Amino acid sequence: MIEGRNAVLEAFRAGKTVDKLYIQDGCQDGPILSIKREARKSGTIIKYVDKERLDSMSRTGHHQGVIAQAVSYEYSELEDIFSRAAERNEEPFIFLLDNIEDPHNLGAIIRTANVCGAHGVIIPKNRAVGLTETVARASAGAVSFTPVVKVTNLSRTIEELKKRGLWFVCADMDGEIMYKADLKGPIGLVIGSEGEGAGRLVKEKCDLVCSIPMKGDIDSLNASVAAGVMAYEIVRQRST
Amino acid sequence: MIEGRNAVLEAFRAGKTVDKLYIQDGCQDGPILSIKREARKSGTIIKYVDKERLDSMSRTGHHQGVIAQAVSYEYSELEDIFSRAAERNEEPFIFLLDNIEDPHNLGAIIRTANVCGAHGVIIPKNRAVGLTETVARASAGAVSFTPVVKVTNLSRTIEELKKRGLWFVCADMDGEIMYKADLKGPIGLVIGSEGEGAGRLVKEKCDLVCSIPMKGDIDSLNASVAAGVMAYEIVRQRST
Repeated sequence: MIEGRNAVLEAFRAGKTVDKLYIQDGCQDGPILSIKREARKSGTIIKYVDKERLDSMSRTGHHQGVIAQAVSYEYSELEDIFSRAAERNEEPFIFLLDNIEDPHNLGAIIRTANVCGAHGVIIPKNRAVGLTETVARASAGAVSFTPVVKVTNLSRTIEELKKRGLWFVCADMDGEIMYKADLKGPIGLVIGSEGEGAGRLVKEKCDLVCSIPMKGDIDSLNASVAAGVMAYEIVRQRST
Repeated sequence: MIEGRNAVLEAFRAGKTVDKLYIQDGCQDGPILSIKREARKSGTIIKYVDKERLDSMSRTGHHQGVIAQAVSYEYSELEDIFSRAAERNEEPFIFLLDNIEDPHNLGAIIRTANVCGAHGVIIPKNRAVGLTETVARASAGAVSFTPVVKVTNLSRTIEELKKRGLWFVCADMDGEIMYKADLKGPIGLVIGSEGEGAGRLVKEKCDLVCSIPMKGDIDSLNASVAAGVMAYEIVRQRST
């Protein structure tokens, strides 16, 4: 199930297969009309139902008058990330998330990865949150475009990627200020979990530990904000 | 009511007056012990209650075993922002939020404002979300440190602040790439609402419209991520 206007529209635009589309009776504002157009293009069956029916189908409670029943979000393979970089003729830029637990944060980070031009996101199989509807919604549809790869062991994956020429920077309070570091080249950005930061083993595998300047009374940013700030420092350095 | 470990601990550390502190029977991990220490220092009454009692008191559903009953979050005055800048001997750096509607985003943005060294946050009286418990929690306690000022008319406030030497940059897709702009000096950063961006009138008052590079398939970042990315470009330029 894909719920909410942005998420449904982006799913269509990304070419996802939607089995059935449920739209609330009487809804015909701009976003809903765009969704209907996309549905017609792909030959999707549209069912008009009342609000109560949608409410009862909804798992997130935020359907905004539209729910699409689609094949669930599929995980990609590491090769998909490298293909995306190769297609764009760019050096690989990958996010690695060490146990992000909040689905809103995971969604926002995948959204950021897409917008900042990273080629994929790697998450660990255990403990961390996976690609749920809430994540898809929070990603504003980015899960349909940006490859998300699930791996058994993040440290081992880092080793593997190093052999393919990537180097790794870990975002951590203890590191050198990011503005002074050289963040160019084929790069993996490691973001730790909300409370704990990156795990010791993962951190040790990284070539560099970098920090965001902290000038306030409290000592950390929201995990998705921190990921965005550091990702865009990489974007800035790559563009100069 | 302040709920959750971080929020309660930060409230104590910020010197907030807590009337009563409710702790779940049997909780005695590190964070709870720190909270108890702070409570004892300030002579706060501690009441031990069972989980059901906390659940019924909780408005957010995420009390994590601790709820503090405190005076509610107070709004500050513009002067408080200027005092904070003067105390630190810095040129003013202010966030202006044009109708942020999601309390998690508002909280995350106040948290970012605190951590990146901004001196205050200005929000409009109408429509936008105010300082609720959810906001306080999402701010990880930053609402207790960073002045948040509510104003009737954001455009008029911008005029007023211009007379006091500030200049204004508005984050918007149409603007010039932020890396190329000069973002130094006493500055107000204007962030628009999640769906709409900044209002036309507010945008027209700004001296400069700046954009974050967009290199993906979807066309916007989460509002709190966008605020963080642009705020840290200001931090970077100020530090060089």
